[in-house]
Amino acid sequence: MLLSGGLDSATTLAVAASHGFACQCLTVLYGQRHAVEVEAAKRVASALHAHEHKFVEVDLRQFGGSALTDDIAVPKDELGGGIPVTYVPARNTVMLSLALAFAEVAGAHDIFVGVNAVDYSGYPDCRPEYIRAFENLATLATKAGVEGNQFRIRTPLIDLTKTEIIQLGLSLGVDYSLTHSCYDPDSLGRACGHCDSCLIRAKAFADLGLVDPALP
Amino acid sequence: MLLSGGLDSATTLAVAASHGFACQCLTVLYGQRHAVEVEAAKRVASALHAHEHKFVEVDLRQFGGSALTDDIAVPKDELGGGIPVTYVPARNTVMLSLALAFAEVAGAHDIFVGVNAVDYSGYPDCRPEYIRAFENLATLATKAGVEGNQFRIRTPLIDLTKTEIIQLGLSLGVDYSLTHSCYDPDSLGRACGHCDSCLIRAKAFADLGLVDPALP
Repeated sequence: MLLSGGLDSATTLAVAASHGFACQCLTVLYGQRHAVEVEAAKRVASALHAHEHKFVEVDLRQFGGSALTDDIAVPKDELGGGIPVTYVPARNTVMLSLALAFAEVAGAHDIFVGVNAVDYSGYPDCRPEYIRAFENLATLATKAGVEGNQFRIRTPLIDLTKTEIIQLGLSLGVDYSLTHSCYDPDSLGRACGHCDSCLIRAKAFADLGLVDPALP
Repeated sequence: MLLSGGLDSATTLAVAASHGFACQCLTVLYGQRHAVEVEAAKRVASALHAHEHKFVEVDLRQFGGSALTDDIAVPKDELGGGIPVTYVPARNTVMLSLALAFAEVAGAHDIFVGVNAVDYSGYPDCRPEYIRAFENLATLATKAGVEGNQFRIRTPLIDLTKTEIIQLGLSLGVDYSLTHSCYDPDSLGRACGHCDSCLIRAKAFADLGLVDPALP
């Protein structure tokens, strides 16, 4: 499974573990501006008893084209429509491809990813039709597929609102204070509270009468 | 386009250039055992007047599972059936994903790749049905696709025999002495002449009454 250390991937790991999967986690370091994500991923994998945790680096910064990999300002205090500047070109395709390589070598055919099409901030590579297309590709792409195995891209959060995701995670014992979702943390790694990602989380916790435990 | 510096990708670059494309080349360093491929890619890009040439590293060795990334012996003097030990799990999916990221940022919608389904050595991710699945995925995956652009994965060699590929390249002025395809070169980077890749090349040149100029 792909593990970023954010709220969604932490919940996805808890769901997979609750279904009895021995989870082999992959954190893809794609040139994020914030190494704090690596630390969050380690904390989450450890707290939720991941079976294995690998890291792979691939520097998407050299292609540019995103506020998450370039020096483009992250928008604050606005939840706009359309595809935001935090979109990273082909990010989920690159990450799922790496997860597919890991899965094939490990002999796994279930790949979990915490994508979400409800509060998905407009990313095209979080839509169900994209996930089905990748599943089809994965089976055609691999020796495992040619040998008759069907890869499944498992997206347990895809139809849930952020509030429902948090409810699910809390019911499974996820400690969201360990997670990190902010696009623009300060030098100490603390969430800004004002970017898209922070605003969506904060609103969902508020709807449950809670305060986001990742906020400083 | 994806450029490895091998015979097929050099020919593909020549074909794309002959159709008037300003070629932006991407060489993916996936933990090959042979840095000699990097030098070959640079020579080929330069000789064929590539518009741009980028390199991206992603270490697939940590997943293992292939003679090209592990310490598994490369088979010699046998052209076997089935999927060979030189298969790298999900390699073309990882490489095409990175090419898609590069293409989207560059505003390009045509991605050239030198895959070949005739003398393809049994790799599942060289088949036409795989390429069509990736094309479908690419359009669903991206902001460019959502905005109405159709990505095309262009595979001008896919139906050609190795002999036909060499004839095509020679007609376009490709200097095959610059290319490198060997899976197991010596410490000076010279082709071994005995691995799958060398045998397929040597036979194709011989069928044309030629000697492979990449052989020492």
